[in-house]
Amino acid sequence: MTPSPSRKPPSGGKDDDETASTSLSGRAAMRIIVPLQGIAHGRSGLVLGSVIPCALFYLFQLYFRRKKSSSSPSPSPSPSSGDLYALPGISRTPSRSLISPRTSSVHAPLSSRAAVVNKSGACRLAAGLRRCLDDPYHPTSNPDGVIQLGLVENQLSVDLARDWLERNVKAFLLEEARSDLGLGGMETSLQYDGLLDLKIAVAGFMRQVLQGSVSFSPSQMILTSGAASAMETLCFCLADPGNAILVPSPYDPVYDRNLKWRTGVDLIPVPCRSTDNFNISIAALERAYNQAKKRGIKVRAILITNPLNPAGNILRRDVLYNLLQFTTDKDIHLISDELFVGSVHGDKTLISVAEILDTVDFDKSRVHILYRLSEDLSLPGFHVGVIYSLNENVLAAAAKFARYSSISLLDQRVLVWMLSDVPFISKLLWLIGTRVKNMHHLFVLGLKGLSINCANGTGGLNCWVDMSKFLRSYSEKGELEMWEKLLDIAKINVTPGSSCHCIEPGWFYFCFKSLSETDVDVVIERIRRVIGGHKGHH
Amino acid sequence: MTPSPSRKPPSGGKDDDETASTSLSGRAAMRIIVPLQGIAHGRSGLVLGSVIPCALFYLFQLYFRRKKSSSSPSPSPSPSSGDLYALPGISRTPSRSLISPRTSSVHAPLSSRAAVVNKSGACRLAAGLRRCLDDPYHPTSNPDGVIQLGLVENQLSVDLARDWLERNVKAFLLEEARSDLGLGGMETSLQYDGLLDLKIAVAGFMRQVLQGSVSFSPSQMILTSGAASAMETLCFCLADPGNAILVPSPYDPVYDRNLKWRTGVDLIPVPCRSTDNFNISIAALERAYNQAKKRGIKVRAILITNPLNPAGNILRRDVLYNLLQFTTDKDIHLISDELFVGSVHGDKTLISVAEILDTVDFDKSRVHILYRLSEDLSLPGFHVGVIYSLNENVLAAAAKFARYSSISLLDQRVLVWMLSDVPFISKLLWLIGTRVKNMHHLFVLGLKGLSINCANGTGGLNCWVDMSKFLRSYSEKGELEMWEKLLDIAKINVTPGSSCHCIEPGWFYFCFKSLSETDVDVVIERIRRVIGGHKGHH
Repeated sequence: MTPSPSRKPPSGGKDDDETASTSLSGRAAMRIIVPLQGIAHGRSGLVLGSVIPCALFYLFQLYFRRKKSSSSPSPSPSPSSGDLYALPGISRTPSRSLISPRTSSVHAPLSSRAAVVNKSGACRLAAGLRRCLDDPYHPTSNPDGVIQLGLVENQLSVDLARDWLERNVKAFLLEEARSDLGLGGMETSLQYDGLLDLKIAVAGFMRQVLQGSVSFSPSQMILTSGAASAMETLCFCLADPGNAILVPSPYDPVYDRNLKWRTGVDLIPVPCRSTDNFNISIAALERAYNQAKKRGIKVRAILITNPLNPAGNILRRDVLYNLLQFTTDKDIHLISDELFVGSVHGDKTLISVAEILDTVDFDKSRVHILYRLSEDLSLPGFHVGVIYSLNENVLAAAAKFARYSSISLLDQRVLVWMLSDVPFISKLLWLIGTRVKNMHHLFVLGLKGLSINCANGTGGLNCWVDMSKFLRSYSEKGELEMWEKLLDIAKINVTPGSSCHCIEPGWFYFCFKSLSETDVDVVIERIRRVIGGHKGHH
Repeated sequence: MTPSPSRKPPSGGKDDDETASTSLSGRAAMRIIVPLQGIAHGRSGLVLGSVIPCALFYLFQLYFRRKKSSSSPSPSPSPSSGDLYALPGISRTPSRSLISPRTSSVHAPLSSRAAVVNKSGACRLAAGLRRCLDDPYHPTSNPDGVIQLGLVENQLSVDLARDWLERNVKAFLLEEARSDLGLGGMETSLQYDGLLDLKIAVAGFMRQVLQGSVSFSPSQMILTSGAASAMETLCFCLADPGNAILVPSPYDPVYDRNLKWRTGVDLIPVPCRSTDNFNISIAALERAYNQAKKRGIKVRAILITNPLNPAGNILRRDVLYNLLQFTTDKDIHLISDELFVGSVHGDKTLISVAEILDTVDFDKSRVHILYRLSEDLSLPGFHVGVIYSLNENVLAAAAKFARYSSISLLDQRVLVWMLSDVPFISKLLWLIGTRVKNMHHLFVLGLKGLSINCANGTGGLNCWVDMSKFLRSYSEKGELEMWEKLLDIAKINVTPGSSCHCIEPGWFYFCFKSLSETDVDVVIERIRRVIGGHKGHH
């Protein structure tokens, strides 16, 4: 049977920007309605607040419903519906389906969330990713290919992990084969949120990554198949459709996908500024919170990354303390995404929010940590996301939601086996740390040679690069123009700051985790091609 | 490091019944509001229809918001927040956290969906599952334990699959170890919806299970880690929060979980009757559709199971044709859940809806098939759900959503390897078929010896059992009383018909897929204990 791969592969990756814009009309209506709702919910103005906005609300509903139905994506005429017949052993009846009026009838409509998601695939950034997939750079076999500096999993030490697997997998599997590969064990225990053995191993690993500064309890842990599902699951637990989460920006564009697509939750970027080295500002959070409240939007949480992603800062102890104070005052949750904990490359040690909770007294049940094992293990293909929470209700709900994203039993056993090899894990962590440090150093040095500055980050697998002085116009348009040049001329696919909700044009997210050290020179040389004769607007 | 498993494991399984009741107050409001909305959206009555219901709507919102906030589950005082300290290498500070006023502050509220899900864990049926987990039956080591006849994965031929793995896994993994276990391949291709190799293998397998009556195109397929996520993903694609799906009842209670919990979509049971052998009635569907429409609820799809689950009927060709006609007339989707395709045990051959589409002309883009590989392979622990659709938009969105439930690369490779062993697969299918047939026969025979009748089903891994004549009162109360006796006295955990939305009391779902043939006698003898001296109300 030959496959008929007529359908486009999923475009995934960095394609979420337009997701935001698609629901603009609906949101515009909400911006007007919601403050009025705010009045209605106040103690005063009940009569005024219920009749007038109601009338407005329904008129808006009618207006936007009509507008939406006219602008909804036109149904495509099922290009590959003939595929069913394209296989041996089935008689083809193309003529009939061509004549039939039914076949050409309008498709039953999809959900609006599916429509939004599909529309996001058509955006400019998905094109960048596609270019990387179609023409991937390789130092020897395709030296002119497109270099991926967008978002991929950490491959900096894949060689080491692969070596280990090759050396150990035989012994492991012979062992496992004797114990029936756990067949039948999984379903009866219904432990969708991860084997206890793996939770113990992950807790130990997280402690090791944080250099023993804090311990994690396996019983407070939910394991999911990848960070995307860990994020989404936590969001389902903490917020309802129409609620919002404050996120200091610039932030990783994956949040716009993982936290919004299916949950119906909105993200409110809270801008940080280059003049402040992109540090989180409690005052800005306060403003954003109050603005949302005025508009009748319920803020349920703040999401921070530590180290800041993409800016790379390690959050100071007092910042974490202030965040805990702020979330306590507002009675909201604090989500600390510590995905890149293992990739700190400066001298400062990272402080997990769990460590602060150990020493200072706050309601621990409002704090939730996200972590990704495959990131720090450099094991793409093994997807393990972690929700660490001290809130029993969150753990109970997340454990149930874990049925939609449980980790393969086989993967779990391999990982338990691997994590129990303490000398190997220590060596792996040391090596990844060294490589991250070297890569970051080489990138910063190379860019400096082109008079390009980076933010002063000491964590993460990327550089946050300021190319604003090379923009033809200091605007989002100018930034995207530069992004296109980098893709077309330099053949490198980076993430423009506007996709990270950075309000200052000209910043770019260079992620180096799929490169080797020798690739850095190639990248720098290619950038020189773009900005060589370029004077910039400064 | 020792784990502190103080947190209860997820109670999963058959615990969804109370999910439905928790949102009743909100739904009651909708029942009043929505018809008025219907008036407002009509051509006439625009003014009348917008002001009056608006005012009502806001008053209801205020009322229910207040009611909801007062009835929301009271936050539990984080029983194991001390766990963080319960590990070596960390100083314990219990005294401080006991004094602190902050620690005892009210927790930040969870989402209402999480609250609903958590509440569902406290229901009666979860207790049945818990009993099975705490005291599981084993013929030799625990002959007095609780026998699980609830919902588990197919373990009828686990022995065969295990044998195969033991024989082949070494060769397979040596092969794989040479080819780096696919490390690094997954992320760069971003093929979250399954490897093409596996899709080709699954398409071939599905064709084999259906005895070659229809072919499936791998390019129309999305693979997810398990049937639960396949169902949920499809639901996210087809319906928005507040929309509804019609489901002929009795239906498998897992739908109440997988299709409702996170999607916000509602299911409308459409009762089938024992006098009609639980056949699907188009007239009843029409009525339910019109009622929903009158209440302003948008019906987006009909979900059928084939064979009917739990009644076991194989859907006739004309029924499938009528369903296609009905969904075309209403411009809605048809979801055909063919999870139990491989477990047909009567003489009739199952007709997939895909086969009807091959021969009759309907808009193929509104038909979607769900399938579960691990069910027919008898491979619990390997979770593979399949969405088969000829709708390009659904495939595109589902491929993106697949990132939240992608199948482990290692599992995919093992399965490709296993499915390519054609003689083994043929033997496995034959054996499973034989065992299902024998089990069903033994159950029906044993129950008949107790004067208990079963529905006339010829498919599925269960019996749909009529114990109505043994109820003390012919009501849901009587049914649950019987269910409790079966659990307490006979020590068998079955699913009462009320959990399947069966409107006739006294029916029970006996699922035999985790039993061996010798266990059947034990079950029958235990039931005799309950109904032995029982005359029933008839």
